[in-house]
Formats: sequence, C-alpha cells, structure tokens
Amino acid sequence: MVDYKTLLSVVGRSLQPYAIRKLSKMLGKGDTISLAAGAPSSQTFPTEELAEIASRVIRDQSQIALQYGPTRGQPRLVEAVVEILHRRGIEAASSDSIVMTTGSQQGLDLAARVIIDPGDVALVELPSYIGGIIALHNAQAEMVGVRQDDGGIDLNDLRDKIETVVRSRRRVKCIYTITNFQNPSGVTLAAERRERLVEVADEYDLLIIEDDPYFDIHFAHGDTRPRPLAALMPSRVIYLSSFSKVLAPGLRTAFVCAPEPLSAKIECAKEGADLSSSVLDQVIVTEAIRAGLIDRRLPEIRSFYEVRCRAMLDALERHAPEGSRWTKPLGGFFVLMEVAGAFDATESLPRAIERGVAYVPGQPFFVDGSGANTLRLAFSKETPERLAKGIELMCSVMRGA
Amino acid sequence: MVDYKTLLSVVGRSLQPYAIRKLSKMLGKGDTISLAAGAPSSQTFPTEELAEIASRVIRDQSQIALQYGPTRGQPRLVEAVVEILHRRGIEAASSDSIVMTTGSQQGLDLAARVIIDPGDVALVELPSYIGGIIALHNAQAEMVGVRQDDGGIDLNDLRDKIETVVRSRRRVKCIYTITNFQNPSGVTLAAERRERLVEVADEYDLLIIEDDPYFDIHFAHGDTRPRPLAALMPSRVIYLSSFSKVLAPGLRTAFVCAPEPLSAKIECAKEGADLSSSVLDQVIVTEAIRAGLIDRRLPEIRSFYEVRCRAMLDALERHAPEGSRWTKPLGGFFVLMEVAGAFDATESLPRAIERGVAYVPGQPFFVDGSGANTLRLAFSKETPERLAKGIELMCSVMRGA
Repeated sequence: MVDYKTLLSVVGRSLQPYAIRKLSKMLGKGDTISLAAGAPSSQTFPTEELAEIASRVIRDQSQIALQYGPTRGQPRLVEAVVEILHRRGIEAASSDSIVMTTGSQQGLDLAARVIIDPGDVALVELPSYIGGIIALHNAQAEMVGVRQDDGGIDLNDLRDKIETVVRSRRRVKCIYTITNFQNPSGVTLAAERRERLVEVADEYDLLIIEDDPYFDIHFAHGDTRPRPLAALMPSRVIYLSSFSKVLAPGLRTAFVCAPEPLSAKIECAKEGADLSSSVLDQVIVTEAIRAGLIDRRLPEIRSFYEVRCRAMLDALERHAPEGSRWTKPLGGFFVLMEVAGAFDATESLPRAIERGVAYVPGQPFFVDGSGANTLRLAFSKETPERLAKGIELMCSVMRGA
Repeated sequence: MVDYKTLLSVVGRSLQPYAIRKLSKMLGKGDTISLAAGAPSSQTFPTEELAEIASRVIRDQSQIALQYGPTRGQPRLVEAVVEILHRRGIEAASSDSIVMTTGSQQGLDLAARVIIDPGDVALVELPSYIGGIIALHNAQAEMVGVRQDDGGIDLNDLRDKIETVVRSRRRVKCIYTITNFQNPSGVTLAAERRERLVEVADEYDLLIIEDDPYFDIHFAHGDTRPRPLAALMPSRVIYLSSFSKVLAPGLRTAFVCAPEPLSAKIECAKEGADLSSSVLDQVIVTEAIRAGLIDRRLPEIRSFYEVRCRAMLDALERHAPEGSRWTKPLGGFFVLMEVAGAFDATESLPRAIERGVAYVPGQPFFVDGSGANTLRLAFSKETPERLAKGIELMCSVMRGA
C-alpha cells in the first residue's frame, strides 16, 4: 500500500474540490430552474459563424492552427487584443505586455505564482470570485478579506487591513479585485474609488490583479463606464479579460496585460504550465474579431442579459422576504442577495431544490467565513419567465412557506 | 518607478526563458535546414478530416463544444482514453484515474505542483526533456541527474544517487523518465530495466512520472515494444501521454493517468490552473478517435518518421567525424549526437547556421551542466534529402572544414 499523503506537497495535501463543484451534483437536475449556473447562455454563441470559421482556418491555415504556437499567443491575436485594450483606455498595452491564456483562470494562476511566496498576503473582496481565491490559495497566499458595498471595495477598510498586516510584519503583495459586475456580487467599482484604489496600491507598493471578464456585458446605454484600473496606473496593474462571455467559453481564450517585467515572467511561467493555449481556438477567435463577429453581436448579447437581469430584479421586488437586500447590477450575470435573520443559504438549498430551484450559497465566496445568509443568483442561463418563477419559488422557501 | 523584483515570488524571480527559445530567433530563418525544430511535421496533420469534424461538432454539439466543460475533461474523451490505455497494457486505468490536460506540459506542471515541496529532490535522466525540467524547477524541486545509456536510465547510478540524497537527509519524491524514444536522446528504456525501475521506486517509496508522448510513433514492425511502467506498477506511476504527435499539437489535448488519490489532487490543481482545457479541441479529438482517424493513419505516420530517421542515420554514418557517437532511435523524432574532443555545440551553432543548418545544443537538457559536446538532431521536420544535406553540412562544420 502506498501512503500518498506522505508523497504529496503542502499544496497537494491542501487541495480540495471547489465548494461549488460539490454542490453541482445536486444542481440542474431535470427541470430544476437554475439560478446557480454561472456560465454564459449557449443561445448567445454564434454557432454557424464559428463552424464556418473553424473549418476555413483549419483548411487555409493548417500549418498555424494545428501546429505548436508561441507561448505568448498568436501574433495576430495579440495585435487584436492590443487594439481592444486601447479602446478600453489602456494606452500602455502593447504586444510586449500581452500573454494569451487558457481562460482567465490561467491568468489568475500564473499571476499568483509569479508574485506570491507562501505566506504573502493577498487582499480580496468580501465576497470574491472563487476561481481567484483558489489560484491565490494554490500559490499559498494568505488571504485577507476587505469589505465591499454597492460602490465596490471599501477603501477605509482596505487601508485598515493593510496597516494591520504591515504591523504584523507580513508582506502584502497584491489586491485582487473584479472591477465590473463582480462574480458573485454584480457590484461595479465606482469611478472615484478607482482613482483612490490605485493610489493606495502605489502608496503601499502593491500590485493590483484586476479581473475584468464582464467588461463588455454592460447594460448602460451611452457607455459611461468607469475606466479600468489598468488605464489609470498601468505600472501597478495585472489586467485580465476574456472572450468567454462575448464569444464562447469552450474556446478557452483569454488574456493578461501586465507591465513588461511582469508579462515576461508570466510568459515564462506559462511556458512551464502548458507551453501554449489551444492554437486552433486562438486562430478562430482572431478570425471572429477580424470579421467583426464580436462587435456586431455585442448589443444583442447585452440586451439578452439585461432583460434577464430585469426579470430577476422585478421578481425579487415582488417576492423577497422583508428585510432582505440584493445588489442591482449594471452588467454581468449575477445578483447577490442577503437574507435577514437566521437564514442559512447552504442549509436551505436542499429544500429549494426540492421545490424546483437551485442557487449557489454565498459563503464560499467570503474568505473570512461570513456570508452564510447570502446567495449568488445567476440570471445568465434561464428564460425571463423561468427566472421569475425561480425567484418566486426560492423566496417561498425563504419564508418557510 | 516600481521595483518589480521586490514584488516577485522566489519562483517569479527565478523564471528565465527556455534556453531553446533564446536560440529560436537564430533558427529556421530562410532556407536553413532545421534539425532543431522538435514539432511534428504538418504534413502528418489530417487537415481535411479535422476541418470537417470541427464544423460538424460546432454545429451539432455547440452546447457542449462551445461551453465550459468538466475539469477532468469531456466524459466521452475520457472513456476513449481509458480504452487507449488498456490497449497499452495499463489495466488499472479508469475514468477516475484520468485528467485531460492542455498538452502534456500541463500534466508535468500539475504533477510537479501536487507532489513537490521546495527543496524536494526529483531524479531526472541525463539528458532529460526541457519542458519537464522547467515544470520541476517551477515547483522548486532540486533536480539530480542520473546517467543514461542506450538502454535508458542506469539503475546502478540511480540507486547511488538516491542513497546519496537520502544520506544528506533530503527527500526524494520522484523519478522523471521519458520511457520511449526520449526527447532529446531518442533512447528507449529496455524491458528488463522497466521491471527493476518500478521495484526501485517501490523500495524507496517514490513516485515515477512517466512521460510517454511518442508511444505510438514506433518504427518496430511487429510491435514488440516494452510495456509502460504504469502497466507494471500503476500505484507508483503518474503516466502522461498526448494526441499532439499522432493528430495535431495545436489541439493541445493530452492526458494524465494516475492512482485515484493523485488524480483527484491533479484535478483540483487543474481547476485552479485553467478550469478546463479547450473543450472544442477535446470534442474534435473525441470524434477523430471514434471515426478511426488516428488508428487508420498511424502506419503512415510511423513510416513517415522512420524514413526520415533512416536518412539521418545513414548520413551520420557517411559524414560524422571520427570518434563521434549517436543514438539509433526505434521511434520518435530525435537523435542525440556526441562529438569527440573539445567540440562545443553552442559555440559552433552560429557557424552551422551560417552554413545553412541548425540544431539544438544538448547542454540545456543535462541538469548537471554536462553535455556541451552533444547535439539534439530532430528528423521530424525536413525531407529525407534535406536531412542528408543538413547532416553533411553540420559534419563539415564539426570537422572545421
């Protein structure tokens, strides 16, 4: 008998399945209305166009699309990403600052590995994205939670937490933040806080990991979105974004933009991590961009999710138990709900599923263990009608009805 | 000014570009004959078939192929991999032991992260594959080289090295070995040594990382290949293989097979590393397997490389300077050449390129810094005629002609 425990690393021993994955066996069975699944709706995928592009690039560019490619990514795609970032106000972006990744999850993992030593402190929002938490955990970061309200991260609490860590002689390396329509809360970091956040990072000599996968899924008409942190102070920001929400996540194509000394390290780390992301996926995404497929479809994709968000918010207005609160997202896929009293979202989940609706309990998103009375509600998967019905069912469970 | 050095992790600071990548700017320019490129020939890619499969699976299975998928991989692909492993004699393989990875490079990285703590010793062959060395380095393994001859790893030297490490109170965690047609040496581990190698692992309570990307690219007629180590002692072996050499590396689809307690940890590590590999690539590979595309084309692919190997070996017979030696591979893509006297392969490379031929100096493959007089010669890219010409040119440079 082999005793594998003694053969594992410290990280290896600590690895556990996602809290969400453990739930996933309960979720989405049969006709259950899923407020749990956080994936983009497959109705938004441009299937015919991608099928045509895929066969064409394999036929016409097989020596590129089917062969090994450079670790940083396909040069034409990197160029296209530079343009995308310039349009987002990140003027510092250049081909030397970009690394294409296997989803933003890989960007998080590589960024964490390149900057975190075991015990280094990473500040994360309360709540924060689980994938980011896992990447930081796997680099053996110690995570300290910072309060968040409807305007995003609380800068007073951020300063307090940094001062506390510094007094305890630990090293704060980074702030991890999801600036737009955060997963799981739907919250967007307010414009004036953005200016102050980068100043805090500069004052305390920290890096910011800015995770921005939902940038293009905004509901605002007129586009008055605040600028990314990477636009305000590029020297301090590792910026991540993705084609998963605006094209298709199965293509696993995302990107990191970082100051050149960091992007060079991220490139090296990626070389050891997977040599390169799928080349076929990258070539398909390149052609989709060049054909205008993403830009042309964005207005439609935004309305698709806005209608669903509206349906969820309306149903919450009608059915939510007294004293409960929820966020009002300006984009993305998620609403975070907080229920008054002794409600425990994890305990109540089996009963909700019995009644035909599933959600994700909020607690795993809070690194300080709080949030037992919160729920992540995704409006990305179901029709507006089923979302309304799901919220009604869920609220009846909350009221013990 | 940001001082990035102080913000990097120990690993981050240590990351350097591949030695080979630094050379790549010199290599393969214009009409240079490349004995350097270690990629499969794009002539072996089934372009038309893959183009047809890609458009079909996107049209017919868009909700799978374009959506997020399970971290372990597409269930139908995992099933197909289990069958492939059973045919290789690895009876212990089951769907619980498989994790699909973004190339075998990711399998190496995840395996290293799950078992290696900083300072743990990993035994590697002299020479060994650079990608494996990098993955172990990035997990902060201390690597100890073990001699290799034409029959593979030298078991007496292996025991000596283990005993030395154990006496110095360091922990040996694993042996990393490429068992068939090794990159860079082309050497295959002899059958009788395989039995003894797994016994050594068991005796000293070690794991073996068996990297086997070239398994199917064998030239033997009648298929008398020795069994994988994973077939002999599955409880001690993390087995890695890939579709890159038999289908197309741009699809970045490979797999790890490990005892269930380890594969569960590798799955968790992959969740944090990239959530899942390209789903589209996996679905394409699944269909390619089910359509018999790989099995049907293997005989042709094997002859393709065998003819090229033969051309290289014949040219070496004719032109190699006296006292030089080279391996005689039974498969794969590579020959390792050792030149007598004070020849330095790195120093001579610019002169070779000037004469129109490129190769990869062997030294970076030797973790003990030896091998300055060795060269990795790839026969996978060029035509037999150009290989012969390239060897002739290279040998004339060696003789100072």
